[in-house]
Order: sequence, then C-alpha cells, then structure tokens
Amino acid sequence: MNRSGIITLTTDFGLNDAYAGVVKGVILGIFPKARLVDITHNIAPQNIIEACYILLTSVSFFPPGTVHLAVVDPGVGTSRRPILVSRQEQFLLGPDNGLFSDFIDESAKVYVLNRPGFFLKNVSQTFHARDIFAPVAAHLARGAEPSQLGELITDAVRLKRPEPVIENNRILGTVIYIDRFGNIITNIRVGQVSENAVVRILGKEIQGISQSYNQHQPGTLLAIIGSAGFLEIALACDNAALRLKAGVGQPVEVRNP
Amino acid sequence: MNRSGIITLTTDFGLNDAYAGVVKGVILGIFPKARLVDITHNIAPQNIIEACYILLTSVSFFPPGTVHLAVVDPGVGTSRRPILVSRQEQFLLGPDNGLFSDFIDESAKVYVLNRPGFFLKNVSQTFHARDIFAPVAAHLARGAEPSQLGELITDAVRLKRPEPVIENNRILGTVIYIDRFGNIITNIRVGQVSENAVVRILGKEIQGISQSYNQHQPGTLLAIIGSAGFLEIALACDNAALRLKAGVGQPVEVRNP
Amino acid sequence: MNRSGIITLTTDFGLNDAYAGVVKGVILGIFPKARLVDITHNIAPQNIIEACYILLTSVSFFPPGTVHLAVVDPGVGTSRRPILVSRQEQFLLGPDNGLFSDFIDESAKVYVLNRPGFFLKNVSQTFHARDIFAPVAAHLARGAEPSQLGELITDAVRLKRPEPVIENNRILGTVIYIDRFGNIITNIRVGQVSENAVVRILGKEIQGISQSYNQHQPGTLLAIIGSAGFLEIALACDNAALRLKAGVGQPVEVRNP
Repeated sequence: MNRSGIITLTTDFGLNDAYAGVVKGVILGIFPKARLVDITHNIAPQNIIEACYILLTSVSFFPPGTVHLAVVDPGVGTSRRPILVSRQEQFLLGPDNGLFSDFIDESAKVYVLNRPGFFLKNVSQTFHARDIFAPVAAHLARGAEPSQLGELITDAVRLKRPEPVIENNRILGTVIYIDRFGNIITNIRVGQVSENAVVRILGKEIQGISQSYNQHQPGTLLAIIGSAGFLEIALACDNAALRLKAGVGQPVEVRNP
Repeated sequence: MNRSGIITLTTDFGLNDAYAGVVKGVILGIFPKARLVDITHNIAPQNIIEACYILLTSVSFFPPGTVHLAVVDPGVGTSRRPILVSRQEQFLLGPDNGLFSDFIDESAKVYVLNRPGFFLKNVSQTFHARDIFAPVAAHLARGAEPSQLGELITDAVRLKRPEPVIENNRILGTVIYIDRFGNIITNIRVGQVSENAVVRILGKEIQGISQSYNQHQPGTLLAIIGSAGFLEIALACDNAALRLKAGVGQPVEVRNP
Repeated sequence: MNRSGIITLTTDFGLNDAYAGVVKGVILGIFPKARLVDITHNIAPQNIIEACYILLTSVSFFPPGTVHLAVVDPGVGTSRRPILVSRQEQFLLGPDNGLFSDFIDESAKVYVLNRPGFFLKNVSQTFHARDIFAPVAAHLARGAEPSQLGELITDAVRLKRPEPVIENNRILGTVIYIDRFGNIITNIRVGQVSENAVVRILGKEIQGISQSYNQHQPGTLLAIIGSAGFLEIALACDNAALRLKAGVGQPVEVRNP
C-alpha cells in the first residue's frame, strides 16, 4: 500500500497540556515530511466509546495510506498491548482496548507492536503515545511495512456495541453521540428509516424525516439523516440535547409506516 | 493570481467533534500539498457576526493567493448559495449568508459555486463544508480559476453592520467583540480618536488613550488602539469585560477635545 | 546549527480569537515551508509559570534546530525586551519576562532582538507576537543566524523557582502543575525518590511508587514517576486534583526509608 504521508491524531489529551505537541515533535523527528491532522484531542478522559464514534465518522474521508493515531488509554503501563490495524487502505494505531472495534473485521489485519527497535529508547510507564505510538506511526507513514513493526494477532479486543433492535416496522435504537450543536445522534442508520417515519424520544414525537435543519421555523424539533449516515434529532437554530436533556444511551424509537 | 497553497479554516464546528478533521481529510485527498491553518473553530454556534470580525482581523495577514474557508452555516441544506469571493489577492469561500460582508465591495468578484463536478460525489443536506466547500477550496488552492468553479453574481448577501455615529467632537460606537483577555473591542477606528480623547462605557470614564496595556497599575481601566486598529477598553492585568459586565452591543462614547 | 524547519507555538491566546492564526499567516508569508506545531494556546492568561512547565516538558522532544515561539506577555508594549535563547540545538523566542528561566544557563546564548528590519513594518503596542516574534521566528527557522537578529546579552530575566528541600531522608516539595487528567505533578524528580518511599499530600499517605496508573483498583490514590520525570500523584481511573482539592503550590512530602 502507498502512503499518503498524513498522520491523524485522536486523543483525550485535551488542549491545555503539552502532550499532543510532544507526540508531534517525536513524529517529525523521525519523519520530517509527515503532515499532521488533529481530529480531536477533546475525547472525554478515558472515554473509549466516544473515540470509536469519532474514528468511525472520520477515517474514510482521508486518502488511502493514511495513519490514524488514536490514544485513549486508561490501561497505559499495564499489560494491554499496543496494536496496529490495517484495513481498506487505512492504518489505525493505538492501545488494544476496543478503540478500533468498528474496524476489526474479516477485511482487517491486526498486528501487535512488539519491536522495541521502533520505539523511543526509554519507554515510560505513563506516556506510550510519545514513546511507542508516535515513533511507530512515523515509521509506518514513512513506508515501513506492518509486518516489520509487529506480528499478526487474531484476538484483538472488540467492544460489543449497542445495535438497534428491529421488530416489524418498529426500530428501537439508542443515542450514541451528542455533537457541538446539540444534535442527538442515534445508532439507527439511513437505510433503516423511511421518509415518513415517526420518531419518538423522551416523550416527543416527530413526524417524518427532514431534508435540512432549517426548512422549519426556529425551535422546531426535527429528525434528519446526519452527515455520517445516522438518524439525528435536531432543533432548528437551537440545541436539541440541551432542551430535551438527552444524553448518550437514551432510547429512541422509529416507526416506519 | 498565484496561489500560496495555504487554506485557512474559520468555523463554528468546535474542537470536540470530527468535523474540522474530516474537512482537512477531504482537502488533502484532492490537494496533498495544501498547508492548513486553523484560524478558529470556536465561533459561537451560528454566530455570523463573530465570524465576520475574525475574518476582518485575520485575512490580510496571509500571503496573496490564500484560500480562506469559512463555515458558519445555519442555512445548510436550504437554498442559500455556496459562494467564492475574490478580493485583493485573497479568496474567501463559504455560504452566502453575510459571512463575507466586509469583503464584498467594488473591488471584489463574487461567484456562485454551481459546478457539482468539483463537489464530493454524494452531497449531504447537513455538511456542505465537507461535501462542497472543502473540495472546491482544494481545487482553488491547487490552481483552478474562479471562473471554472462558478459564475459571477452581483447580489451576494451583505449584512448591515453598526457604524459609529459622529456628532461634532462626539463619537457614539458599540462593542463588537470581546477577546480571550476580556479586552472590549469597539467599532471605533484608530483615525477617529485623538490621543487625549475621553472614553465612556457603562458609567466609567477614561481620560486619554494609552500606549500599552501595562504602563498603568494593575487594575487600571484604560483605552487603547488594539492590534486590528479598533478602539479597545482594557483593564491592566485583568479582564475588563468580566469586571464591567460588558458585552457585544454595549454603547461606547468618545469625546475628542 | 541546521534548521528543522519546525516552529512550535506556546501562548495564552486561547482558541477563540484569531491571534494564533494571524501569527501563522505572518510566519508562512516569510517562510512558506515552515511546519507549524501548536504546543498549546491555552496557557492561563499571563501565567508565565505554567508556560515554563509546558516548555520544560516539550522542547527537548523536537528535532535539533527547532524554533519555539512562546508568548505569554503581560508586559507587551512596555520596555520589556524581546529575546532569543539558543541552547542545546533548540531556539526559544519570546518576551524577556522569565518564560525561558529553565533554559537560561551557562550553555545558553541569549540575544536581544533589536533589528527592526526583521519585524513587520508597523509594530503595534499590543501584539508583538504578530509584529516582532512571528517574523523573527520565520527568518530564524529559514536559516538566519541569531547574531543577525540581535545582540548577545547576559542579564535576561530568570525567575526563582521553588526547589524541593532535602533533609536527610525527607524531601519537601510542592505541586507545580495539574494536567488534564487531574494528575498532580510535583517538583520532586525521579532520582530523588526510592521505590518504597512514602508520599504525603493533604493528609493522605501513599506507600511506595507505582509502575502504572492502573495496576490498582479504580479510585486508589497512587504515586508514580510521570512522563517528564517528576513525581506525580494520581487517582486510578479518576481525577486526583479534583478529589483532593489540590492546586499548584500545595506542599508534598516524601520519606525515603
């Protein structure tokens, strides 16, 4: 596989500390031509599920041969393994804790990163992003083969994710993500919802699927297929999650007529 | 016009979601050499006026031939047009909702982006930054001519902005922006204020225009010409907006002696 | 010294305003090939001490010949000098207010930046990052020699930093930083603490130094050597600073048996 030279970063490091900057320094020291793209550093601390959604909705928009470095790593310094996933011309690199659950399928190859020659000389117990993942990502983006960096495994951690339950014309799903605009994103997918479906959440009922956020009066609650292909509940010109007090895990019901 | 290869980003996407990262992925897929510069992604959701100030104070500091992608887009998915403004060797790209009001004048050329061949194949109803603006920005930064990307228009949206009222030696202005340090930025410009003017805001009176924030004792309220050429009210070593409870729209009076 | 072409940015500008973006625009106008890396823009406004810790833990992870632009500048527009520090193949650039205290030693050369030919034409009283530091950083990263940019000085400002007090087997240190995860970072260094030391903070006692954050049950208070080589106090799967109500300046005691 060719390399795009791009390395993306998805972490829970936040933007106040030097952690993300240091990771970039290590990468550029090994591969000066790397083009670094922050996806986000604001994953809630140690929230693997949130990071899964971010990866699911971003990875495929990058050119083939991109390296996605993802570090949400409550188990750093324990025996949890560092891994590399190669799938559909994208590489994902990070701890083996379920972060890559949506990418580990039959078409994926997973490697445990067990070649310390590609790590920094001194590996700390608390910052593997700097000491292991950054240098390996740099070598990979520069052209190293996955098989040089580690060994194939078949037992990588996959988290069970809540899937919508379908009963005849009724779909029971859940909220999986709230975005900055307060849009309430569910695990129900575009193909599962008809145009004139009825959507129920928190006692509210929405008739039909809208074509845009703002074809309605401000303040109208609406259902729409979001940009990642999931059913969303939104409030025209307002914050739906805040007004409805909806959070991740909230049940959502769809009835297709 | 030559191209600098730089694409800047000004959005209300925030830094928690993958939206800004995905836009960059699409750009780099089309124009791998693009150099991406975040201006800010923290425009208050759907606050077009705030984005106008950010663009007004940043665009001219970039090299000629830079592409400025700005997306604050409450009307996404409706009939609002995607546009491109070419003015004084800078390009601005985004929704036709007034974002570019300060750049649309006699010296500007404005194009409606109506060539879907330059868009992503599937254009969603909710994320035109990814599906329309990112790919067009990439083509433009790589060298495409504006006339290839769209058609000239003359009716782009321009927002009426509050201008200071001048009555003899008295200027009545308003606060247009509060920055991170709590500096209160008004719409009164450097040429309108004499060195020993008296500035009034919220019952406070300031004698004369200062040369620096900290030539005074900590806690002194002062007036100064800010880095963008607007009159600012600041509090030495402190947050003026917080202490005075001043916000955007607050009246400010200047008397030149 | 060679140049890496990298310019890092450490400021208190925040991420809402255009300030950081404008600095990048000025740099790229002078040195288009600069690779820009944000360390952080979220230093608490005018908090020089916090910026010192960020620089201390990040600078050495960048390739030789990197330029580190750091602007936390309460004295902008006063007589405080703009300086450049050259030390151990790294360059640091910013106001002479103590920001570079940890880098100004016998092995460092310090220059006052007094060659306006390298500044922007109009230098404002309020934004030297844009008008002085950005253009000088660009010229330096592109290859200019420090001696072209300014004159050697020997009286740069150094802040006195709290050092741990050692009394026999007892070390009295203080908290110097709290990170995003709530880890409480002290000024006690790796070589000063034995493996079975007893650590006391805010009435709590911790027996022994741990090897990882999560070898314990969630909620266990632990002491560990952090990634920058300082003794940290952490709470497994939780926020130690929040739970203990610990802040910068808090005393910490270590007893080596």
